Amino acid sequence: MTTAKRDTYTPETLLSVAVQVFNERGYDGTSMEHLSKAAGISKSSIYHHVAGKEELLLRAVSRALDGLFAILEEPGAVRGRAVERVEYVTRRTVEVLVGELPYVTLLLRVRGNTRTERWALERRREFDHQVADLLKAAAADGDLRADVDIRLATRLLFGMVNSLVEWYRPHSGTGPDQLADAVVHMAFDGLRTVR
Amino acid sequence: MTTAKRDTYTPETLLSVAVQVFNERGYDGTSMEHLSKAAGISKSSIYHHVAGKEELLLRAVSRALDGLFAILEEPGAVRGRAVERVEYVTRRTVEVLVGELPYVTLLLRVRGNTRTERWALERRREFDHQVADLLKAAAADGDLRADVDIRLATRLLFGMVNSLVEWYRPHSGTGPDQLADAVVHMAFDGLRTVR
Repeated sequence: MTTAKRDTYTPETLLSVAVQVFNERGYDGTSMEHLSKAAGISKSSIYHHVAGKEELLLRAVSRALDGLFAILEEPGAVRGRAVERVEYVTRRTVEVLVGELPYVTLLLRVRGNTRTERWALERRREFDHQVADLLKAAAADGDLRADVDIRLATRLLFGMVNSLVEWYRPHSGTGPDQLADAVVHMAFDGLRTVR
Repeated sequence: MTTAKRDTYTPETLLSVAVQVFNERGYDGTSMEHLSKAAGISKSSIYHHVAGKEELLLRAVSRALDGLFAILEEPGAVRGRAVERVEYVTRRTVEVLVGELPYVTLLLRVRGNTRTERWALERRREFDHQVADLLKAAAADGDLRADVDIRLATRLLFGMVNSLVEWYRPHSGTGPDQLADAVVHMAFDGLRTVR
């Protein structure tokens, strides 16, 4: 078994195990020893694949960030009225969160103690800014309520979306589409029937 | 200085220091030694006030929970249409979060490893259920959009509200009223102008 595992270990499976351990123990609380035990391979085998745990963190958060930034290049995010574009980006953000759940969970828990963590925080802020810019453009088009404070709305929108990593469980019976619908309708149309 | 501190130490000030340390290091990661250093009093002085760190946790999360449950007894939460009551509860929840920020932050980070933590999680769920019941009543009155999934809406509402503990900073220029308005308007009316 162990030999078979060793033979079939790839950077991809190592990354997947590392992300799970980081999410369980916290990045700071994870040692190479923990990773070695969880992966069932020796530390030197891990060092054959990566320089250390920070490289695993970098690969993991990059995967989450690449998924998020790719959304901003999609046709739905670049064409049409700003309000439609920001709704599209919100929907797709939910889908990427669900599709890359452990990677995005790790990204959202990053605290900024290492260079990689600070870089990840910086990239997250950049993504948030781009969404805030879309909201600003939607407000300028007259498509957002006049009393909306863009800065607060951006925080609350991401607060709602990012909370998914804390409570959403795949195979819970709620699919990504249904979840994305619920988020977009609540954020943009509100829960109330029109007054 | 140290003597003066010792003389004026009260269970209240000890609690306030303990909550700060719990929030910084995590409850599991906090020892009596950490608490003693942060409070500037000996461990035996702490044991004069409380039986141990779990009692401090109990007092701290009770303060947050008492604040939250008191909302449900207020006139605005028990009289009027369900949709108005749930908007009221949402607004007041934001205010309690901001007013008791370190205590609610600790409550929301509780993981369930000890009896006190499991009790706190249970009480949080009970609060969420009561809000979900109000949302259900509002839906039955026809005051929520027909496509609203109550379970998801409750999760998303608390996801948005609870995210405040991660990003809201008192003295940031945004007052509790403004914050509560932003949350209630976004959740119930949505960001968009009426389509």
